[in-house]
Amino acid sequence: MKRLDSRDANFNQQLDALLAWEGVSDAAVQARVIDIITRVRAEGDTALVEFSNQFDQVNAATMADLSVSPERLKQAYDGLPNTERDALTQAAERIRRYHAHQVQESWQYTEADGTILGQQVTALDRVGIYVPGGKASYPSSVLMNALPAKVAGVAEIIMVVPTPRGEINELVFAAAHLAEVDRVFTLGGAQAVAALAYGTETVPRVDKIVGPGNVYVATAKRHVFGQVGIDMIAGPSEILIYCDGQTDPDWIAMDLFSQAEHDEQAQSLLIACDAAYLDAVEASIERLLPTLDRVDIATTSLRDRGALILVADETEALALINRIAPEHLELSVADPQALLPSIRHAGAIFLGRHTPEALGDYCAGPNHVLPTSGTARFSSPLGVYDFQKRSSLIGCSPQGASTLAAVASVLARGEGLTAHARSAEYRLLPKAD
Amino acid sequence: MKRLDSRDANFNQQLDALLAWEGVSDAAVQARVIDIITRVRAEGDTALVEFSNQFDQVNAATMADLSVSPERLKQAYDGLPNTERDALTQAAERIRRYHAHQVQESWQYTEADGTILGQQVTALDRVGIYVPGGKASYPSSVLMNALPAKVAGVAEIIMVVPTPRGEINELVFAAAHLAEVDRVFTLGGAQAVAALAYGTETVPRVDKIVGPGNVYVATAKRHVFGQVGIDMIAGPSEILIYCDGQTDPDWIAMDLFSQAEHDEQAQSLLIACDAAYLDAVEASIERLLPTLDRVDIATTSLRDRGALILVADETEALALINRIAPEHLELSVADPQALLPSIRHAGAIFLGRHTPEALGDYCAGPNHVLPTSGTARFSSPLGVYDFQKRSSLIGCSPQGASTLAAVASVLARGEGLTAHARSAEYRLLPKAD
Repeated sequence: MKRLDSRDANFNQQLDALLAWEGVSDAAVQARVIDIITRVRAEGDTALVEFSNQFDQVNAATMADLSVSPERLKQAYDGLPNTERDALTQAAERIRRYHAHQVQESWQYTEADGTILGQQVTALDRVGIYVPGGKASYPSSVLMNALPAKVAGVAEIIMVVPTPRGEINELVFAAAHLAEVDRVFTLGGAQAVAALAYGTETVPRVDKIVGPGNVYVATAKRHVFGQVGIDMIAGPSEILIYCDGQTDPDWIAMDLFSQAEHDEQAQSLLIACDAAYLDAVEASIERLLPTLDRVDIATTSLRDRGALILVADETEALALINRIAPEHLELSVADPQALLPSIRHAGAIFLGRHTPEALGDYCAGPNHVLPTSGTARFSSPLGVYDFQKRSSLIGCSPQGASTLAAVASVLARGEGLTAHARSAEYRLLPKAD
Repeated sequence: MKRLDSRDANFNQQLDALLAWEGVSDAAVQARVIDIITRVRAEGDTALVEFSNQFDQVNAATMADLSVSPERLKQAYDGLPNTERDALTQAAERIRRYHAHQVQESWQYTEADGTILGQQVTALDRVGIYVPGGKASYPSSVLMNALPAKVAGVAEIIMVVPTPRGEINELVFAAAHLAEVDRVFTLGGAQAVAALAYGTETVPRVDKIVGPGNVYVATAKRHVFGQVGIDMIAGPSEILIYCDGQTDPDWIAMDLFSQAEHDEQAQSLLIACDAAYLDAVEASIERLLPTLDRVDIATTSLRDRGALILVADETEALALINRIAPEHLELSVADPQALLPSIRHAGAIFLGRHTPEALGDYCAGPNHVLPTSGTARFSSPLGVYDFQKRSSLIGCSPQGASTLAAVASVLARGEGLTAHARSAEYRLLPKAD
């Protein structure tokens, strides 16, 4: 595993190289996606059935073969072993409770002259959730995407999940039942995104599409952005651990593995001020890595994208954290709250030795859909706020309108927009004198 | 001006045709923009100087010729006539005061077992504001984009504004001074967006880019989305007025003009339940239209995209409003507050006869950057919340971690992610018995 040292002359270049990641969707992917979207818009269900048969190797005759009934979802839920059903239910309950804190309320205030200003907060009408098929099909993602929308008050949630070669993930169906997803279609790829964005005879048009997907899905989402809302375009998952050298090295090694086992592109970084501690973690990694079920993926991920980083002191560590703006940040230190005011950019912050990322991934309550690849510099975890929107409220009293009209008239004429000025001036009250 | 009647058999098709608008950026524009971005990333300042000389027909030798000093901005401000400076200052003060209501605070709560959950809210470090050059260069837009960022606590604001053929808008410079913009470059087009997204020797890389622009700017913003945050891709501006037939028809006509004078693509719609009232407004339009300074633009806009729409009753009017999801909605009625609970989608809602859109455009306080083309279905006015982001906080007590680890372990094993499970299991406490 790579070792970096902040005292090295070329540390900055090494770090840049380590962090470099750019989602590539080349011209061929772009063209393919535009073609798929165009056909779904023109041909609707017919195109969906054709593309699904072609790309997912299913055998659908009509959209009925790509629609999942609520009864089928319930059957999946009822069929789960008790321990799994209980765990899923507890996770859902905690996620709901946490997200309830994010609900935003409308507000208004009245100025001295009677003018009212404020914002009205409303939920989106209809939301689409993309769930990847096959191996990356996670029931926890269904909960994390659907429950904030439910808490926001979204009236209808449409889920799409491809079933490559007919493979169904019962846990995903069960999670959809638990999260009260309204309709499920076994669709995937750019065609699913197009169907949600524009609607077909069977698939209703939604107002926003959330959820991760492959390069075709990401490219399609970027393309339909504006027609519908979208969440972030997600890159590979990352963890950055800052440790004071007092946490059991085996714990830290396993926390790094929990990220590295996701996929070869995942990134696991550890920062410490103590070289001997980095040695100890490296020894744990070497001992434990061969015991992992997903040893090949984790080995590649750690080799290509992982690093143990030595820094001079806590100040340097904090600067590095903010520069990296990690998706997941573990502060494996004695007093993590003391560091919080210095952390400006991170998707989720895990406080203390007893808070591994895995708890947040499943059931602590906060969302596991988080900004990757440094985008925590400007974006937030998925939340209820992503499923609410605001309308400005302006209600002028006759006196208030008259006062504002005088100002607006000057500014509008300054911009050469004289119809604006005259519209304002109609609301001037006669001067009392 | 077009007249629509909701009783017509083909009303829905007519309405769809009226509302249809799609931002087109064809393959040629795409290719040009990607080329410009690639060159700015590779060549930095050199490319910026070259592109500016080429596209803006300026005569720059180095970036110093494309940089505006704070002294130059102050000079523009000091040089304004008193009435304009006062109006701008009053508008800024009201915009600041309103947006202060949008500031979001961090929160935490502690569960019974000592586990802490919450969100930490922080401001973006650095924001870029794109201001169009030439005729669409509006000082009010500088205030509306910069002040929410300032209120959010953004440390540094970089503004770009092209100066085609060297044309400088003194009001724009003055507004930048008033809004305390930190640095200004006279750059425009895709090259300005690329510079802000990736940084050059002179232009610092920002975390988010906001502000409207032409098709090259919009295409470039869509392209760099993910590298930086962006606001919405704006379409043409629109107003929808619902009137109970009791407002002076001249007022309504001028309110429609205030939208139509923006550009030929702008959309002005009026809904009423009373055909005679629509006749009266049409008569006002015919009488007043020739008196406008921007008569040609307004005439084209009203002819191509405007409409007077007759509906059967208020219920129908409200359904139509929500279907259109207008950028600006004027409720020119006696009791507008009574209608608010029925309005689900609108960028800004102007309440009552004394609240024309023009007051909101300049100085009422709420933002004039609003979701266009029906995107109010899923997005909000520009606000302080666009310049703040959140980090989830999770701090488990040893007992809390143990409880959660049991749940996470089951779910992680269900997903085949056993390193996740083992990372959680390390935090299980020995069972007391």
